[in-house]
Amino acid sequence: MTPPKSPKPILSVGLIGQRFMGKAHSNAWRQAPRFFDLPVVPELHTVAGRDPESLQAFADNWGFAHTTTDWRTLAADDDVDLVDIVTPNDLHEAPALEMLLAGKHVACEKPLSSTLEGARRMRDAAAAPGAGQTFVWFNYRRCPAVALMHELVQEGRIGEVLHVRGTYLQSWGGPETPMLWRFDKERAGSGAHGDLNAHIVDMARFVTGQEFEAIHGAIAKTFVEERKNADGSMSPSTVDDVVSFLAMMESGATASFEASRLAQGHLNRNTLEINGTKGSVRFDFEDMNVLNFIDGTEHPRTRGWRRIMCTDGEHHPYAGAWWPDAHVIGYEHGFTNMVADICQVLGGGAPRVKLPDFADAFETQAVLEAALIAAERGAIVEMGSVREG
Amino acid sequence: MTPPKSPKPILSVGLIGQRFMGKAHSNAWRQAPRFFDLPVVPELHTVAGRDPESLQAFADNWGFAHTTTDWRTLAADDDVDLVDIVTPNDLHEAPALEMLLAGKHVACEKPLSSTLEGARRMRDAAAAPGAGQTFVWFNYRRCPAVALMHELVQEGRIGEVLHVRGTYLQSWGGPETPMLWRFDKERAGSGAHGDLNAHIVDMARFVTGQEFEAIHGAIAKTFVEERKNADGSMSPSTVDDVVSFLAMMESGATASFEASRLAQGHLNRNTLEINGTKGSVRFDFEDMNVLNFIDGTEHPRTRGWRRIMCTDGEHHPYAGAWWPDAHVIGYEHGFTNMVADICQVLGGGAPRVKLPDFADAFETQAVLEAALIAAERGAIVEMGSVREG
Amino acid sequence: MTPPKSPKPILSVGLIGQRFMGKAHSNAWRQAPRFFDLPVVPELHTVAGRDPESLQAFADNWGFAHTTTDWRTLAADDDVDLVDIVTPNDLHEAPALEMLLAGKHVACEKPLSSTLEGARRMRDAAAAPGAGQTFVWFNYRRCPAVALMHELVQEGRIGEVLHVRGTYLQSWGGPETPMLWRFDKERAGSGAHGDLNAHIVDMARFVTGQEFEAIHGAIAKTFVEERKNADGSMSPSTVDDVVSFLAMMESGATASFEASRLAQGHLNRNTLEINGTKGSVRFDFEDMNVLNFIDGTEHPRTRGWRRIMCTDGEHHPYAGAWWPDAHVIGYEHGFTNMVADICQVLGGGAPRVKLPDFADAFETQAVLEAALIAAERGAIVEMGSVREG
Amino acid sequence: MTPPKSPKPILSVGLIGQRFMGKAHSNAWRQAPRFFDLPVVPELHTVAGRDPESLQAFADNWGFAHTTTDWRTLAADDDVDLVDIVTPNDLHEAPALEMLLAGKHVACEKPLSSTLEGARRMRDAAAAPGAGQTFVWFNYRRCPAVALMHELVQEGRIGEVLHVRGTYLQSWGGPETPMLWRFDKERAGSGAHGDLNAHIVDMARFVTGQEFEAIHGAIAKTFVEERKNADGSMSPSTVDDVVSFLAMMESGATASFEASRLAQGHLNRNTLEINGTKGSVRFDFEDMNVLNFIDGTEHPRTRGWRRIMCTDGEHHPYAGAWWPDAHVIGYEHGFTNMVADICQVLGGGAPRVKLPDFADAFETQAVLEAALIAAERGAIVEMGSVREG
Repeated sequence: MTPPKSPKPILSVGLIGQRFMGKAHSNAWRQAPRFFDLPVVPELHTVAGRDPESLQAFADNWGFAHTTTDWRTLAADDDVDLVDIVTPNDLHEAPALEMLLAGKHVACEKPLSSTLEGARRMRDAAAAPGAGQTFVWFNYRRCPAVALMHELVQEGRIGEVLHVRGTYLQSWGGPETPMLWRFDKERAGSGAHGDLNAHIVDMARFVTGQEFEAIHGAIAKTFVEERKNADGSMSPSTVDDVVSFLAMMESGATASFEASRLAQGHLNRNTLEINGTKGSVRFDFEDMNVLNFIDGTEHPRTRGWRRIMCTDGEHHPYAGAWWPDAHVIGYEHGFTNMVADICQVLGGGAPRVKLPDFADAFETQAVLEAALIAAERGAIVEMGSVREG
Repeated sequence: MTPPKSPKPILSVGLIGQRFMGKAHSNAWRQAPRFFDLPVVPELHTVAGRDPESLQAFADNWGFAHTTTDWRTLAADDDVDLVDIVTPNDLHEAPALEMLLAGKHVACEKPLSSTLEGARRMRDAAAAPGAGQTFVWFNYRRCPAVALMHELVQEGRIGEVLHVRGTYLQSWGGPETPMLWRFDKERAGSGAHGDLNAHIVDMARFVTGQEFEAIHGAIAKTFVEERKNADGSMSPSTVDDVVSFLAMMESGATASFEASRLAQGHLNRNTLEINGTKGSVRFDFEDMNVLNFIDGTEHPRTRGWRRIMCTDGEHHPYAGAWWPDAHVIGYEHGFTNMVADICQVLGGGAPRVKLPDFADAFETQAVLEAALIAAERGAIVEMGSVREG
Repeated sequence: MTPPKSPKPILSVGLIGQRFMGKAHSNAWRQAPRFFDLPVVPELHTVAGRDPESLQAFADNWGFAHTTTDWRTLAADDDVDLVDIVTPNDLHEAPALEMLLAGKHVACEKPLSSTLEGARRMRDAAAAPGAGQTFVWFNYRRCPAVALMHELVQEGRIGEVLHVRGTYLQSWGGPETPMLWRFDKERAGSGAHGDLNAHIVDMARFVTGQEFEAIHGAIAKTFVEERKNADGSMSPSTVDDVVSFLAMMESGATASFEASRLAQGHLNRNTLEINGTKGSVRFDFEDMNVLNFIDGTEHPRTRGWRRIMCTDGEHHPYAGAWWPDAHVIGYEHGFTNMVADICQVLGGGAPRVKLPDFADAFETQAVLEAALIAAERGAIVEMGSVREG
Repeated sequence: MTPPKSPKPILSVGLIGQRFMGKAHSNAWRQAPRFFDLPVVPELHTVAGRDPESLQAFADNWGFAHTTTDWRTLAADDDVDLVDIVTPNDLHEAPALEMLLAGKHVACEKPLSSTLEGARRMRDAAAAPGAGQTFVWFNYRRCPAVALMHELVQEGRIGEVLHVRGTYLQSWGGPETPMLWRFDKERAGSGAHGDLNAHIVDMARFVTGQEFEAIHGAIAKTFVEERKNADGSMSPSTVDDVVSFLAMMESGATASFEASRLAQGHLNRNTLEINGTKGSVRFDFEDMNVLNFIDGTEHPRTRGWRRIMCTDGEHHPYAGAWWPDAHVIGYEHGFTNMVADICQVLGGGAPRVKLPDFADAFETQAVLEAALIAAERGAIVEMGSVREG
């Protein structure tokens, strides 16, 4: 930890990458100490990127003290405590390994890697002696409604889990959308699957507290087979547009998941529902401040789905940091809440709800890999075999 | 057809069975001619059942002229034009075959049979020379919102179909529910699957106008393994409580289905959503008068899911027979609308939307069978092989 | 009561009028004994109307044994037990008075009369010795959700009532709608006010169990000032298109009401919300099977509006007569539930929830009148002065 | 304007007050230049407050360079360009007048003043030669959904406005809530009325583009008459808990408004609905990213309320500054969007939608005053008389 410039220790942050996620993360690092009382205070030290011109503008906007076009310099910089990696999926592993070797803490975007082998190496590197702590940006865990869902399920409020149902539907992936790295299997690893199913698999594991036992069938399909490049030429779109799969959880609960970028009418429909023996919970990100809950033990005369606005500062996770009741929060707050928990942990405290590290994210990546294997083979795939490689 | 006692020809109806569905059907046969102008008018001729005492009360209540404890007498009775079969699933085939042989029209509850072989024999009997016309009570096709959904998809309003998503979730099947024929595999054939997935598979075929190509994975699971009999003893519950499966439609669209009787909070959550290249449609029976529709060709500034109240007498299927706009209808009206269409067809007219016959219902049963095979084998199952036996 | 032709006494019904409400009522009289076990059984004896031709078709369709073009014959007919009046508002009083004088029971459509004076005379006639019992078709009281709302409020589940908020919004009254009796003040008495506010005022009185203390401001406005007749000529439209008003209830609760036929997007938006010291209830007819309820005494962490599907046969009013849980009912069932309660009362039993009689409906009419006076005078109007005339 | 320290001119901001609104505003001043490309860049210069200790912590947290316990020093400080006033309502006027006299720009919280006379003096001071520009924090105008609502209505998409319906319901004001300045009429001017009706009156004026013609009835009521002080003693609660009123707009449209702090189940239910001859729009802050719109000119077969997620960066106001589609924003973003527009205007540009100044906010205050007069007198109150004083 950098010697304190203020009464509180500083957490000096390096960032690799500067697009959509660079913006979301930079904002979160800046905002967290304004709203939370944290044991360590993040400062934006250096941003690393390829394009010097846009890099400087980015640094100026968000308040990074330095820029570099060579992310390796971060490993060597003793002033940097934590490196935040927001590059395309195939570019997570190299910097992560190098930063861990240098003893830095690493916060990495999801999915952990573009390949399961990469994820395995990252997990192992994180477990090596001298490595810093690791964090993976499964930001939805820290939507207050999802955190509350987790707490209620863990407390037994819905009894034993019987069914898990997740969808992550978007609609921006039609043939009119041009070629991007996200459509290139080499870079992204997969399409809707790694981008969207990654979130709902993580959320299902987080909320139920269970691992997956086996995949019982999957479909992965590419509907849009080529896309236009910036120069007007066409390139093959090599990733899935949709992946659906069925699974059994280790308790015997049944589960289904679907991610698509071609679901007209759904813009960011990240939903998770859990049915248990005593009740159910349901989340939909398009109505992110709300948790739907039904308590099956309530008298049938007045039993019904409850629409819980998760904005009560005293009773709902993270809500106390923000605004008065029902003065709702948005997408970016999940990241800010996560920064707050990272700072808690690095300052010796505890997160409000469990933070995903590389080992945890490896498990999600194994589920995603198993689903793709199931789709290819048309057979049941046991998680044990995939996990062990 | 019976010689007319009134200006309009009479359709004389025999009913086999007298429980929940007996009530729903008897009401529909009585109500349809009050609300629709029909070419033939149904009359309730005879109800057949096992228990003479309750049978007479049933007949008195609904206006059946006769009762019998031997359904075979219906086949021999020249006054009976159509026989309506609402017995448990294993008792559909015998009366259906006998009535068809006797030249009667047959309206049969769904699923067609408790076995695929039974369904095949019923389909073949319906195709034999001299057989009457056949109808299967997939009543949800005639909810105005589902009929409109079908029309919009068939007109191309959502473009090419990409994804199909059906769920039919209920919550009455917990361990506190006593043993019923519905939990006995010998009688019911299956549990939630034949009871609930049957409807959403039929609706998916009806709305898309497509057959299924293959099943790509399935889970069938029994959570509650025994149930209490009326005498306090326990019997094994031998049917599935939940069946989930993935499928490809013949156009290449992906599909998923789930039926459960253990989904707390869902009472009769029969939903179907279709995403196409140009838009999407969504139905939820718990809000049965509404069709949700998004037109992807609309300007993004004012584009959104439209909540269409399908109660406009001039523009929505079946609505003109009922009440002024937004004076909503209920569950029973699907049956009444179906009686109206049966009468239209038997009077030489056309139904508002396609009526399912035995051949049509056989196809649904083949899909259900294929899903169970897929669950058992853990493999992809092509529909062709199942269909052909 | 007519001497019994069956084990149960018959309630012989005469109907005056044969349009929309004639259809709704005839259906209800026919359906109630099929679904409810009633102490007396209604039979459709005679329908009275002006046009002999359509009258016979109406009688044939609904099963009336007789027709007449002179409603006065019903008063003289000893076989008729109850007369149901569904004529335009200005034609309620004359038949009601004559039937009461003849000792018949009278069921009259709402609002009770086109004038408060007429309503007062009707109320007084109903109280005269020898008059039959009276009923007014405020059908929404018998939607299961509204009846449950009444029960919960009366049991104190929302504590003391603080605010009442009712709207009844429709959108069919634009300039393209031709001239009808409903737009003629002589016949209808008022427009949206008597047609729609009548219902929400009745519901507010029924659910809270309170009378109105005073009207604290009102607006009555006609936007469409003339309409096209069938022959192409124009006639003045002399009724309100919208009436809004504020009121104090006798407990000191504040209240607001609005009825409009020009509220685009609302087809039959009959809503009532009550906020109390311990909770709130909310009903919306466009989602008629649902009652929204929030229990303010519940822990804030899991408190939320509950969406109660009022279809539980064991626990929700009237639901037991109909279908399994969440097999929803529609508009017409409110009328059928009311027929069931009328038969209960005339058979010596008790209604599930209070039935409105002429005295009760007079009170609603006095509120409507007070609102119009307040709109005209621009002043507070005490209910006492209006009630006493 | 302060001489530029960076390529862009700086807007140096002084803040008076440091509670809930101090936090919301400080955040907005900090965030706006990160997300918007602005012609002038705000810097937090000085915060003024009474309590030196909490003041320094506040300044440190939000990055104010200076603190003062005497707000008058801001007027004298040439480095301060704009003064932002977030004190209780009775403490808006004095600093506003002094800052305007000193030529500062002033941004003031709503309602403009605790009295109409105060508001009038503020309006007049803003119009004096040499005064800076004025802004009033009616933040909801800049929720994307409300801004879109305004645009659609102004473009004629709903035709002529017929009805306006606003509610602002909260539930935190029960007897268990202790004494606060908000319950003291001397300081707050009014209760729910100035706090909540102020917003919906402003929104109604903004969206319709119309002024109010007259108030046609009002109720103002205090249910909780005393509250506990911090020391355990009781003080009278002298403000309204609820105010409802009816109004006519200058076009002849009818309008109703209700604000309450005692509406169980509503946490921040700020709703506005406008019905026009060709369609309707509806906003509910508890679902703030959504605008409901119905286009009455659409074919009835597929007409329905559209749920527009106002997050499209290309097509929806302010959305382009934030996140990808359906990555929703929250309460605080309305303030940040307003800061962006203030900077646009002070940099010589145009706001995305109209910014309220003191003259504009005076008009809202006159409506609020007229409603209270109407409640007291029980009579119609013409706006002309109130406006002119």
